[in-house]
Amino acid sequence: MPATPHLEKHFTATEVVRDVVIGMSDGLTVPFALAAGLSAAVSSTAIIVTAGLAEVAAGAIAMGLGGYLAARTDAEHYASEAAREGQEIDHLRDREVHEVEGILRNYGLQGEPLRTVVAAITSDRQRWIDFMMRFELGIEKPDPKRALTSALTIGGAYLVGGLVPLVPYMLTRDIATALKVSVITTGVTLLVFGGVKGHFTGVNKGRAALQTLVVGGLAACAAFALARAFG
Amino acid sequence: MPATPHLEKHFTATEVVRDVVIGMSDGLTVPFALAAGLSAAVSSTAIIVTAGLAEVAAGAIAMGLGGYLAARTDAEHYASEAAREGQEIDHLRDREVHEVEGILRNYGLQGEPLRTVVAAITSDRQRWIDFMMRFELGIEKPDPKRALTSALTIGGAYLVGGLVPLVPYMLTRDIATALKVSVITTGVTLLVFGGVKGHFTGVNKGRAALQTLVVGGLAACAAFALARAFG
Repeated sequence: MPATPHLEKHFTATEVVRDVVIGMSDGLTVPFALAAGLSAAVSSTAIIVTAGLAEVAAGAIAMGLGGYLAARTDAEHYASEAAREGQEIDHLRDREVHEVEGILRNYGLQGEPLRTVVAAITSDRQRWIDFMMRFELGIEKPDPKRALTSALTIGGAYLVGGLVPLVPYMLTRDIATALKVSVITTGVTLLVFGGVKGHFTGVNKGRAALQTLVVGGLAACAAFALARAFG
Repeated sequence: MPATPHLEKHFTATEVVRDVVIGMSDGLTVPFALAAGLSAAVSSTAIIVTAGLAEVAAGAIAMGLGGYLAARTDAEHYASEAAREGQEIDHLRDREVHEVEGILRNYGLQGEPLRTVVAAITSDRQRWIDFMMRFELGIEKPDPKRALTSALTIGGAYLVGGLVPLVPYMLTRDIATALKVSVITTGVTLLVFGGVKGHFTGVNKGRAALQTLVVGGLAACAAFALARAFG
């Protein structure tokens, strides 16, 4: 796979940040919204804590294992697509050569230079496959070690994020007080997390912080309204 | 952006499938696990339905809006990286030319053909940026219309998936019966969904079906054990 060390480093960091963002976004939002919603419908913080912890455990496992399987599936998807490209190169050689030419023409190559480059790429089967994977299908080769790291990162981030809104309900039996404290602490955490997320993804920090708060707030309001209507 | 119509079609289908998989995987798993967990801790199906619906509403909004913002962030990330590449081309031209040469050497180019290709790519600023984005950073240009579709697909899939395990609790007041029916109907749905997911991602259908069932089952068992311990 033609790739500089710089590229791989860049990519791994992005993926870890992406996993933390995936896990913590939902972890901060859904258990928070569930606890807020149940505050409108039940009369005991014990039920809210029980439901919240059950949700956090289920969510962390579902998202963590889901991330593990998704990473594994990505790796298998890459392998099966690469095998298909290899078969096409073996059995539909002319068509694949035309595809390489078409791709390179888009980069402004023509005439003799085009023929030279096509000859260079198609002279090595593995290099040809790598080229088609990146150019025709736009797929990066996944790191086989990503699956486990991805699972633990997503699941752990969900767990950490999910406990933030629940702690107030563990510390008091007064639902109204717990709800207020949970809204404030989770709101501040969402703002900070959104800002950090913005920093890593290279978008405006203030806007990212507000967006994250709005998502959590809207989810909590919907859960609250629904729980009040049905509770 | 050099891309054949075939590539774009391939890619869009993959992304829609991916969004449905993201939404429905969690939608089938987490509300199911929450309802199963609460079955061990509370004495009324009304509380389970209320908590379940609050969770489904919160989850659908959080995941849908999260998907919307993630797609928007991808688009902004691409734009900011492309702008940076553009600046590097303007101000660090020699270094960027060396990078193009290095990348093409990995594809077996050298000597006069290499110089010709480098000259062709670097003769057009936009083409040069496109080349660096795909080759150095490995980033595809995101479709600007993806964000809204992605949001509705993920949120809708979560909603549909989340209602499956809750319906039994709406139809009877007997928690043990509701739990049994929920486990069976959700189990069958997870198997079918896993098989369909396997079909679209090109991995073994039977294994994908079993994996999906195991994730849902483990999440539900963890939620059940935790809720029984705390409830």
